[in-house]
Amino acid sequence: MIRREAVRVIQEERNGYTLQAGLPALRERVASDYPHLSLSTDQVIITAGSQEAMYLALLTLVETGDEVLIPNPGFVAYPTITQMAGGTPTFYRLPAANDFSFDLDDFKAQLTAQTKVVVCTSPSNPTGRTLTNEELRGMAQAIEASGSAAFVISDEIYRDLYFTGARPGSISEHYPRTIVISGLSKSTCMTGWRLGWILGDAAVLRACHLLHGYVTTCAATVSQKAALAAWSDEAVQARRQIRATFHERRDHLLASLRGAGMSCVTPEGAFYTMVDIRRYGSSIEVAEAMLETGVVTVPGNAFGSEGEGFLRVSFCADMPMLTEGVARMSAALKRNL
Amino acid sequence: MIRREAVRVIQEERNGYTLQAGLPALRERVASDYPHLSLSTDQVIITAGSQEAMYLALLTLVETGDEVLIPNPGFVAYPTITQMAGGTPTFYRLPAANDFSFDLDDFKAQLTAQTKVVVCTSPSNPTGRTLTNEELRGMAQAIEASGSAAFVISDEIYRDLYFTGARPGSISEHYPRTIVISGLSKSTCMTGWRLGWILGDAAVLRACHLLHGYVTTCAATVSQKAALAAWSDEAVQARRQIRATFHERRDHLLASLRGAGMSCVTPEGAFYTMVDIRRYGSSIEVAEAMLETGVVTVPGNAFGSEGEGFLRVSFCADMPMLTEGVARMSAALKRNL
Repeated sequence: MIRREAVRVIQEERNGYTLQAGLPALRERVASDYPHLSLSTDQVIITAGSQEAMYLALLTLVETGDEVLIPNPGFVAYPTITQMAGGTPTFYRLPAANDFSFDLDDFKAQLTAQTKVVVCTSPSNPTGRTLTNEELRGMAQAIEASGSAAFVISDEIYRDLYFTGARPGSISEHYPRTIVISGLSKSTCMTGWRLGWILGDAAVLRACHLLHGYVTTCAATVSQKAALAAWSDEAVQARRQIRATFHERRDHLLASLRGAGMSCVTPEGAFYTMVDIRRYGSSIEVAEAMLETGVVTVPGNAFGSEGEGFLRVSFCADMPMLTEGVARMSAALKRNL
Repeated sequence: MIRREAVRVIQEERNGYTLQAGLPALRERVASDYPHLSLSTDQVIITAGSQEAMYLALLTLVETGDEVLIPNPGFVAYPTITQMAGGTPTFYRLPAANDFSFDLDDFKAQLTAQTKVVVCTSPSNPTGRTLTNEELRGMAQAIEASGSAAFVISDEIYRDLYFTGARPGSISEHYPRTIVISGLSKSTCMTGWRLGWILGDAAVLRACHLLHGYVTTCAATVSQKAALAAWSDEAVQARRQIRATFHERRDHLLASLRGAGMSCVTPEGAFYTMVDIRRYGSSIEVAEAMLETGVVTVPGNAFGSEGEGFLRVSFCADMPMLTEGVARMSAALKRNL
């Protein structure tokens, strides 16, 4: 008799459905980016964007009462999904006073025996700061030493957008119990295609696969086939070009902001800076005043208490638009606040 | 000051993100198919396939301890997602002894004060049977009379594949607290595009929208733009053609099965029939024997206890393939069982 699992897989193939975990060729390419993990294709799932990957990771790992240790400031979805899963969000500070750098001592102080998951985002949304290899190693050793046996979710969605000499490291190089989530939205400007992935520990990925089948079934086949191009020589070239473009925009935005008397963070990656608006009011008040002058920012407190007093400002727009935006911000700050 | 909600929406638009609920033009077209509900576009969300719609509906409606009343046999995901949400699946029988017809008396007997959701699937997967307008009205009246104030999830994914004179009705025409889920996979053969939707009650849809943002963010923009074509005159024509093709295949499959001495259900919609294999063994044993002869079926017990003793056989394949499949099934049954 044929195994029942085989019945399921063969039925899917014969009926012309895409295998739920994604095109094998695409999963192989994703796995090839993490040679140090020696992944089988079963340890990679293609998701409907990295948002689904994040959802699957947290819903799979977090049980009622578990703590999820999240960067503050950090991406807004982490604490919310943690609570949906019945977990408790806890936070390690990336202190504004130190340009949102990683603070190993604070990180160690927040680790507890209940820490089930640690979220590591490098480069960071909202700050654009990256963790050095030494910091990643320090984080890994601190988790090992805590005895919590926590998993790390390494959110690497911005990892191909960097303005330093070399691509930022992945904590998966230092900590084996790492679940990586990422996708093509940022590195190849494919936001609307909803093409992400999740990879790592075989048992965790088996559970994620099961959940994935009930949440979305699979990522769109059109997007999956288009995604294969992201590992071509042409795409390597395109990513280099995208990095150069954002590097130029970053330098232009920082110079413009500082030229207008505003203080801001120098990001090593992603496409954001944090602008200090503490002397003008709360981040929500100032963000709303900016909106009235036609400049869209995100109030820093949306990313946690440590972001209060800052605005997240993106440099996705082209240089004339950035010039205009800074001029309007500057005028509004002088006029209204 | 501008409302905070407006900040969020404008930020999404300015950053070039697709609005999470989907293209307004697409949501308007979907709403236009349900004139009796007078839906605003806020009451429609475009999802990454109807599977996500089903997930959102159940996760939003079901609290711990709630009962979800599900057809037996019925699609496998309903009881599983119900349990993920902390609910208890309960079942109303579509009795095999009566060709899997709706049984109003059994339905009434299963309704309780704890029934929070009733799942209605017409045409049915796996049986292809549809509920008449009278049956839909009977179901609606029974729920009203029970005082449970349950929501109905009406799974209409196969509603455009029918072989009777008129399109099957929707229970939303008879029961106001209906949440409809559907998509383009079956009606326009767009399975791989992952394009579905959910619509209905404004408060439920607001909660679904919030969850949707954390589960997938949005459906792929490519798929959403392609989906606009599904409301063109050409697409109306294509659906008519698809129905005619499946009608022909259905008649051919039924004649072939019956010609070979097998008993099977006459489906009014979808693209499945249920073949009675009770005298040959359990549905899993017979399905595995079929697989060994190269014919893929699904054992009826996968859809619930009422499906035991049957195989779900699809007529997606072309007519020569259906002829060959039935010949192999017939030979295998005679030889092995």
